[in-house]
Amino acid sequence: MRISELSATSGVPLPTVKYYLREGLLPAGERTARNQAEYGPEHLARLRLIRALTEVGRLSIADARAVLTASDDPRLPLNDVMGAAHDAVTRRAAPNRGEPAWNDARAVVLDMARQRGWHIEGHCPALDQAADAVAAVLAADMPELYPLIEVYFDAVEPLARQEVEAVLSMESPDQIVRGVVIGTILGESLFNALRLLAQQNVSTKLLEPEKAGGNPGA
Amino acid sequence: MRISELSATSGVPLPTVKYYLREGLLPAGERTARNQAEYGPEHLARLRLIRALTEVGRLSIADARAVLTASDDPRLPLNDVMGAAHDAVTRRAAPNRGEPAWNDARAVVLDMARQRGWHIEGHCPALDQAADAVAAVLAADMPELYPLIEVYFDAVEPLARQEVEAVLSMESPDQIVRGVVIGTILGESLFNALRLLAQQNVSTKLLEPEKAGGNPGA
Repeated sequence: MRISELSATSGVPLPTVKYYLREGLLPAGERTARNQAEYGPEHLARLRLIRALTEVGRLSIADARAVLTASDDPRLPLNDVMGAAHDAVTRRAAPNRGEPAWNDARAVVLDMARQRGWHIEGHCPALDQAADAVAAVLAADMPELYPLIEVYFDAVEPLARQEVEAVLSMESPDQIVRGVVIGTILGESLFNALRLLAQQNVSTKLLEPEKAGGNPGA
Repeated sequence: MRISELSATSGVPLPTVKYYLREGLLPAGERTARNQAEYGPEHLARLRLIRALTEVGRLSIADARAVLTASDDPRLPLNDVMGAAHDAVTRRAAPNRGEPAWNDARAVVLDMARQRGWHIEGHCPALDQAADAVAAVLAADMPELYPLIEVYFDAVEPLARQEVEAVLSMESPDQIVRGVVIGTILGESLFNALRLLAQQNVSTKLLEPEKAGGNPGA
């Protein structure tokens, strides 16, 4: 199909498609004439993936490109593709990193992970992000929330196993790589949304039981 | 304490403290002279909360103000404070909302939630965010990932119950409100980080078992 059809079929505006081409997120089509190129279903799939990463996953163009570049490299081990996806969702650092309270928080997380026998890499943006959050919870001085740290550790163990197994059950290495990217980035967005829905449900039932009796829905 | 001491104790630069005052995130101190005001420990706690929301929770100043304004209003029911925190973490919308595929995805999520007897509000940004993610997963055409939707529903149910109960176990209404805000926003960041750590652990053990034998840590 022509680029105009690619735009129409995907619903992505033509200038945006051209922008993705220029930025190297979408590979060039096959040149058929001086000013014309042909695009196939793989371009359509790629366009959908770019939109999912940037809109649902909220990645910047630079982060989306880093993830896609990693997932395009057939020599890269799967764990490194996952590392690129993890880097993209954990980029921003809290400013108190390296301060004593932050180092303590990081040690708490590392210790809990080691007690569970988790393998933790030396370079690990997720560990630093966890330390950011634990440091903030400790600074807020709310001891009632501390037990949630263990609750979260308990909850993510089986979850991560099922996620990784679902992705590894895919047929081709190419699908697995896309699955890692989609599973990491969209899975996070979906999980967070469902967690909020569940919190609303529980708190409505506890605080406004009369309201939770009926279920107006939407 | 003077504003300069408030800045020094909190580690927040003086111009930033003044910016929070101007933007109404931090309440004014008690006027002691024409050009002087006195700040107390409640200002210090508030300043820590603002930093946690904007840096660890990645909220914009406008979103942080909306959450803090809601949590400052003693007449507001707790569920509405939670609603403000939820709005802040689910603001951005995918552009395909309202299209048939998105409506289908939303119906899938609503149906699953109703089968579990969840109470879903009419205005519910989390439901729309869940629909964004499910629509993107369905568009990516990876049937191996669909079962994860149920896995996530299963995982968030006990998690949300423990989170809401931890917050409600706090002593004063004021603490509960702060707990809702911190629990929603920092809890999400912490949970996401731990989920990534757990995924790394599982995939390293499955894909590179020789590496996972030792544990270099950091």
